[in-house]
Parts: sequence; structure tokens; C-alpha cells
Amino acid sequence: MFPLPQKESRAPATCLGSATTQDVVSSYQDGLGRESPGKPDQKLPGLYGVGDPVSKFSSDSSCLSSRGRVIKWFWDSAEEGYRTYHMDEYDEVKNPDGIINLGTSENKLCFDLLSRRLSQSDMLRVEPSLLQYPDWRGHPFLREEVAKFLSYYCKSPAPLKPENVVVLNGCASLFSALATVLCEAGEAFLIPTPYYGAITQHVYLYGNVRLAYVYLDSEVTGLDSCPFQLTVEKLELALQGATSEGAKVKGLILINPQNPLGNVYSPEELQGFLGFAERHKLHVIVDEVYMLSVFEESLGYHSVLGLERLPDPQRTHVMWATSKDFGMSGLRFGTLYTENQEVATAVASLCRYHGLSGLLQSQMAQLLRDRDWINQVYLPENHSRLKAAHTYVSEELQALGVPFLRGGAGFFLWVDLRKFLRQGTFEEELLLWRRLLESKVLLSFGKAFECKEPGWFRLIFSDKTHRLRLGMQRLRQVLESKSQETEDVPPPTTPRTPVSSADEVAFACDSGRRLLPPKSSLGAARGPVMMCRTETL
Amino acid sequence: MFPLPQKESRAPATCLGSATTQDVVSSYQDGLGRESPGKPDQKLPGLYGVGDPVSKFSSDSSCLSSRGRVIKWFWDSAEEGYRTYHMDEYDEVKNPDGIINLGTSENKLCFDLLSRRLSQSDMLRVEPSLLQYPDWRGHPFLREEVAKFLSYYCKSPAPLKPENVVVLNGCASLFSALATVLCEAGEAFLIPTPYYGAITQHVYLYGNVRLAYVYLDSEVTGLDSCPFQLTVEKLELALQGATSEGAKVKGLILINPQNPLGNVYSPEELQGFLGFAERHKLHVIVDEVYMLSVFEESLGYHSVLGLERLPDPQRTHVMWATSKDFGMSGLRFGTLYTENQEVATAVASLCRYHGLSGLLQSQMAQLLRDRDWINQVYLPENHSRLKAAHTYVSEELQALGVPFLRGGAGFFLWVDLRKFLRQGTFEEELLLWRRLLESKVLLSFGKAFECKEPGWFRLIFSDKTHRLRLGMQRLRQVLESKSQETEDVPPPTTPRTPVSSADEVAFACDSGRRLLPPKSSLGAARGPVMMCRTETL
Repeated sequence: MFPLPQKESRAPATCLGSATTQDVVSSYQDGLGRESPGKPDQKLPGLYGVGDPVSKFSSDSSCLSSRGRVIKWFWDSAEEGYRTYHMDEYDEVKNPDGIINLGTSENKLCFDLLSRRLSQSDMLRVEPSLLQYPDWRGHPFLREEVAKFLSYYCKSPAPLKPENVVVLNGCASLFSALATVLCEAGEAFLIPTPYYGAITQHVYLYGNVRLAYVYLDSEVTGLDSCPFQLTVEKLELALQGATSEGAKVKGLILINPQNPLGNVYSPEELQGFLGFAERHKLHVIVDEVYMLSVFEESLGYHSVLGLERLPDPQRTHVMWATSKDFGMSGLRFGTLYTENQEVATAVASLCRYHGLSGLLQSQMAQLLRDRDWINQVYLPENHSRLKAAHTYVSEELQALGVPFLRGGAGFFLWVDLRKFLRQGTFEEELLLWRRLLESKVLLSFGKAFECKEPGWFRLIFSDKTHRLRLGMQRLRQVLESKSQETEDVPPPTTPRTPVSSADEVAFACDSGRRLLPPKSSLGAARGPVMMCRTETL
Repeated sequence: MFPLPQKESRAPATCLGSATTQDVVSSYQDGLGRESPGKPDQKLPGLYGVGDPVSKFSSDSSCLSSRGRVIKWFWDSAEEGYRTYHMDEYDEVKNPDGIINLGTSENKLCFDLLSRRLSQSDMLRVEPSLLQYPDWRGHPFLREEVAKFLSYYCKSPAPLKPENVVVLNGCASLFSALATVLCEAGEAFLIPTPYYGAITQHVYLYGNVRLAYVYLDSEVTGLDSCPFQLTVEKLELALQGATSEGAKVKGLILINPQNPLGNVYSPEELQGFLGFAERHKLHVIVDEVYMLSVFEESLGYHSVLGLERLPDPQRTHVMWATSKDFGMSGLRFGTLYTENQEVATAVASLCRYHGLSGLLQSQMAQLLRDRDWINQVYLPENHSRLKAAHTYVSEELQALGVPFLRGGAGFFLWVDLRKFLRQGTFEEELLLWRRLLESKVLLSFGKAFECKEPGWFRLIFSDKTHRLRLGMQRLRQVLESKSQETEDVPPPTTPRTPVSSADEVAFACDSGRRLLPPKSSLGAARGPVMMCRTETL
């Protein structure tokens, strides 16, 4: 999303991220965050993402408040890749040399199914009540449908209740609202990295809430059985670390299925993480927006709402949306499920700023109740297409000798391009990303997900074959030319973790976290240091 | 909306409102507003709206942050009337003894026209681009349509530009976003009272921005030619007063046509107010959500976008929505027009939390471009129905001997029920409101609009005849019984302004601000002091 210049590229097991520039944010936080931690960056310099965009907009002529300038900076700096793509979007006929977008997490495989369903006559119900001010929690008929839907697909042990449902215009809004009502300004949520980077601004822009990272890494050591494995021990250490640095941690964010890793947590892991949160009286926000996009059944996905018992139901808040699972990120429909009525009411109070059209509420209710279409048409076809696309890209990557996590859920592969970096730095990572973009293929780089190891990229495969093929061709060209370059330069001096070696990474792992071995191995690459930013969606 | 207990019921010409409870808010503001004014309430005790709901939710068991508790408090306390209405909603067949809602500002006169238009086949366009992540400023095709629409209906001297348009899910969101990007936490906007009270929470809940009131009154003195007249002199005095109390005023909010007064500002007045803002480098937010609901042509409405020259275009931000003018408050479509690209971009950056469905964006573009339907079907019929309903209610009020502002724009009459209060206090006003609600007719009381004079009510007339008739019958019964009660009690001791006397109020005034004389006069009333809250919408 918005990687910032790092004073050090190596990050510790825990680190509190400010997610924006020190200068601007400090003035923002002076106004907003008296309870923010006591300048931990002075104790641990270099552990923060800090840049200096303030020079761009700190002139007296600005009409914006200091926080307005920070908010605008996020827009200006956060979307370079996204914006570049939209200015030069690939089109088979009109712009065949345009950019192939393998960076934005959208499912483009099922527009035919969706268009057909959304064009049916039941989607054009116009009643006076839909045109009037709604219950800001959502129309009762929709909340009832959502409760039934989640009960069924999350396999809840008892029927979920409509009164625990709040609907709003997407999970971005839900993160914003939850951060604001659960935390004071300056407080923090714990989050394992790499994570869907947009959450940083979702909790920060309005709520001024920060993220305390639980850095995971690809190297399998100690009790780990998989790369990037989250354990209760790591959570405990990260919480201790963040707290000792002055952060007041109020909750934990879990993404399941995980974005960008493409794996899932087992019920035992979930219970462990929820138990950890209960012990520390932390809220848990569980983002399950990919729950119906698990196309590898062997992963055995379990929703947190399907657990027999929640350790702390009053502090467990689950979010889901149609953006990913129904490939409709432009429809802006998301939902909260929480047994905590105080939280539900406080979020509902903010829902007048996150409301969605009554007509859309009616459409979503029609869609969610159409179990025949979902179970017999949409989901089987969607999963089959996702699987085929996943297989194609996986095989291409293997042919390229590029390691990656196997995945099996979501729209992405977590790809290890570390050996194509001249050095293991985020500057080099950004350079490779820029090189790819110049070659007309957009990926998301690991820093956007706060990955601690430079060189990882998220690659979206949920796209039509002709676009995937072209995207992979362009990727191959860049990687081959990078390999060629490395023949002219000395080998990299930065240490490599075993995971980049084919033999060492060929191990099995639960939950889609197998790192697939490359069939060949390309060299590392050099290039000038350039800074750029992109966005994860 | 959420009137709070007043230490004094008399208010000065200027006063900074905190809009919520002192205890909770001070803890909120400790975290959020280091730049907030230096405790002006210590200098002018009793000039603030302060209550003590903190006791309700300050227990340790709360899972919410302090600001979360404030946000929830707004929900819990702000919607008594609205909620009571929804639990006992009038229905001609199913619940003929239910509550008639003359409190919520919705136009219920044109659902037939709207349903017909929104059910046409052009409303069911489903294209992949509409299902994907949008440009957060709004789809370009919609922004283009909005620019054309506003150019035409605001009679702009030159075509308005799509790049100055940002669309989002309603003006509540727009107030929230503008407050956040224009002001630091704790800063203030100047606003003439009475005003659409929901703005208080729109600028406060996320933005922590406050309102500095320019209190207008019904008495016509000095240079005034109308009751509740806004003048540049009053703006100057209010700004000086608020500033001297420590408030940092960053802008001015104008509502035109005015809610709840139902009048409009002349081009000369607008130029004066904009010139005032320019002199003080204040932003001006102009809320024109009722611009097409001017059903008295003689009012001569002028949009600020139709002025030949804006004194400070970089600080002039105009909002419009379909909620009122197209009777679709449930559709959640609003738009900002500003020439200031920094402001547009900063608001757009927050639009990921205020986004609206791509399908709705397509529908709105279809609607706005259908000039034939708007000009030949919808607007003439809508204005004719509004006018008929306005005439009916006006005549009923005159027959009841109740003075009111004539209006001619919007859905409301600003009604003077001061003589039905035993004393000129807000407690008495609330008592009368509660008495009306118990008699199954919901109005909005003046404190919800920060009217400085207790006893004014906003009465919505944009409803079907059978509901209006029943509502007016119930109003008559309550007022008659209140008159009856006054025969048993001494006459009120609080001073009355001339405006409540039939003879004295029969004066003419531009812009719909004529106060119509009653045909009879009922007495004042007594009753126990009770506190309650309602919401304006």
C-alpha cells in the first residue's frame, strides 16, 4: 500500500508502526493522541516506517488541516501503482500494450454469472420504505438474511441472531468504525505481518489507531511447522514488546483466510489466538472476507463463528463482505457480527456515515437468500475457475523457478522473488516492482503488507486466462532479464534464508502454507535505488 | 436532535456549543483536541449545552473507548422520537392509532413517480466496471453527469467541471469528511441558528469539530426586516465572540434553502456572507440539499454556484444530494462541488469509508441525465404537491391561531408554539413535545435546532393528505387541551416577543420569512419538567 523509507530494513519480531510520516503525524497526533505511546521510536530508532512527505504540502497556502494533509498524503502517495494502471489499463483490443493488473485483489472470473444474477427482475424492487431513512444498523429484512447466511456458511453451532448484525458499506468502513469505538486515539491493534496493508489507513485515517506488528518470517525454526506461522508464543512476545514500548494494545486483528498468504487457521490455532486475547482482555476483530473463496477443500476452513465456544464472545467481532466472495468490490456491502450490543450500537451510530442504499440492501437480501444459485451455480463454478487459474499461475511460477506459498484460499499467491534483488533491502524490492510496472505488469510488493523480509510479492491470479498469460509472460521477461543482469555482477552479499533454496523449501505444511519448490533458479539483480509506493486492495 | 439540559435557557448572540456532555467529552477531547479552546465555559458558565449522561455508561465493564461511549450515547439519547415512532408507526389499515410522523424531513408525496422511474429498465445496468473497485471520487460518468446537472439547475455562469465533483453516500458523510480535512480536532464552524441539528454530530462524531452558534431570534429589531434574519453584522459579532472565548473558527456553514426556516438567501445576502468569510479566510460550506424543493417561485432561489463571481472559490464548498430534492433519503447519494483540488482529494481519500455502490452510481447518472422526466414530470408534480400540502397545513395552523414562518422551500414550517408553554423554558418545550408524542403526533422541537427561544417547532408537511389531516387533528387536540389547562393557571410570566401577537407579526418579508398571523389565539400551559431527546433528520 504505502511503504515508506526505512531507516533500517531489518525489523524485529515486534514493532509499532505509525504508518505515515513522522513530522506530519506527530502534529496530527499532538492533536489527536495524548494517550499514544511515549515516543518508542526514540528508544528503538529505525523500527518505524517514517518518511518525509511533509515538504510536499506544508506550505501556508494549504487550505487543509494537518490531519487533512495527512489524509490527502495517503491518497497522493498510496496509489501510484493503482493510478498508473488506470491510466494505461490493458484492453485486448483497445490497449493491448496496457498494464496487466495482478496487484488488485479482485475476482474477475465470474462477472458473467454475477451480471446474469443481478439483472434478474427480483433485483429491481423499489418500495417506499427502501427510499426512506433506514434503520442505520441495516434494514431488518437484510439483517435477518445475513444472520441466516452466516449461520449456514460459517456452520455456527446455533443460529446467529439478526440483532447482532450491523450492515454497512464495506469492511474498510467497519475497520474505521470499530477502531474508533474500541480504541482511544493513539492506541493500537496487534496484527500479524504480512497483512492486508490497507488496514493501516482504515484504522488510522478517522480513528487515529495504530497497528502493532507481530512480524512473522519465512524461515521455519523452533516449533514452527510452516513459513510465516503465527503462534500464541509470538503473539505473547509481540504484545509484551509493544507494551514495553509504551503502546496500549486494545485488540488483535486476524485475517482468515489470510491475505496475502492465502492460507487458513485451524480451529485449534483459532482457539489458541482467541484464548490469548481473552487472557489479555483484548478485542479480536476477525476479518473473514475470503471465507467462501477457499477453493482447496483440503484446507478445511473454519469460521470463528463456527467454533463450538468462543472464549470471549463480548470481545469477538467478525466481519464479512461480498467484495471478495462474490467478486463485487464495487458494490460496497459489508457486515459486522458481534454479540456485544454496546459495540453493535456504537458502530451503528457511525453507520449514518457508512450507509448503503435501500435498493442495494434489498438486492443483497435477494442474493444472500438465493441458496440454490449460490450453492449450485455460483460457488462451484467460482471455485473451479479459481482453482484452474491458481494451477496455471502456480505452474508458470514453478517453471520460472520462483518459490511461492501454495495457498488454496483467496485470489493470491505469496511469491518469493528475493533472489532477484541485488540486496535484501526494501529499496531493491521497490526497484523490482517498478521494473515490473514499467514492463506493464502490476504486482504488490511485500512492504505494502509490512512483510519483514524484502523480496516477497503478492500476485493475483483471479483473472481471465488471456490476461494471466500475458502477465506471466511479462513477469518472465523481467525476471529473465534480471537474471541476465546478475551474470555481470558479483553474487549478492546479503544472507539468504534457506527458504529460497529449492531443496530446503520442499516441505509439507497444513493450511495451504506449503512453499512450492522452483523447477529452476534465476540469479539476483542490481539497479538504482528508487522509492515508490503502491496500494493493496 | 439531542437537546441537553441547559444551565440557562437564555442564550447570547454567540456561543460555542460542545453538543454533548462535559464529562465524557472532556475526556474525549483530552485525547482528541489539544487545540480546542481554552475552556471558555469557565468564563461563561451556562452558555453551553451540558448534561451528564456519563453516569449511564462510565462503568468499568464497558468494552468501548471513551469516544465510543460518546458515540453510543448519541445513538441512545438522540433518537427517542424517531425510535418511538418506528415502534408504533401509523398505518391506515394496520395501525390507525399509530404515531403520525411530522418530525422527519422526508418527502413522502412522490413515491409513485419515483418508483415508476426507478423501475425502468435503464436502472438495471450491470457491467463489470460497476462491480469493481471504483475511483473513490465517483465513477467518471457520474461525476460528468453531476457537473452537467448542477450547471443547469444552479444556473452556473460557466459549465461546472467534473474534476471538481466528488460523490459519496450522502451529505452526513460529506459534513464528516469536510470537518475532518478542514479543521483540527476541537476547532469550530460558525453556524446560524436555528439550523438542521444533525450537523452537530456529523462534524463531531468522527471529526471532533464543534459548532459556534450565531443565535438569531424571532424579534425584528434594528436593521432586521424579518424574523431570524442573518446579517453580516451578526456573523461578525458571533465570530468575535467565539474567538474571544478561545474558539478557533475555521469556517461557516450556510444552509440554503434554510432548514428549518424554509426560506432562502438572496444573491445579495449570499455575497455578503461569502465576503465576510473571505475577509476572515473562513471556509464556507453551503448545504443546498433543498435547492429543487423551492415550490414558491416568488422566493427567487439562487444557488451559490449561480453567482457571477465567488469571493473565495478555493474556500467555497457546495453540497447537494438526492435525499430531499428527489425524496430518496434511503438512497444515500450526495455530492461535493469544490474548485479546491486539495480539498476534493482529501475528501476523496476518506471516500473509501463513504463509498456507494457502482450500481447506484449508474442509476443516479441515468436519473440525473433524464432532464425530460425531471423537468416535465417530476419537478412540476412534486412542487404542485408540496404547495398543496403546504397550503393545507398553513390554513390549519391559521385556524388554530398558531403563528408560523410562511416558508416556501423545503418540507417544513417553523411554528411558534410559545404561547402553549407555561414558561419560556426548554423544559416546557420538551414537555409539550412529549405531550404531542403521547398524543401520537411527532414534531421536532426548537432546541434540536439550537433555537435560542423555547417554544418553536418544526412541522413537516410533505406527507399524504390523510396522514396530514390526522396529524393536524391530534395537534389541535393537544393545543386545545393545553389552552384549557391555561384557564386554570396564572398567565405566563416570561416576556413575550411581539412576534407571538397576531397583529404584530403580520408583516411582509422577502424570501419566505413572512410570519403568518393566527386567526385565533390559544393560551399557555403548565406541566412537570421532563427531559427527553429526539432527532432531526
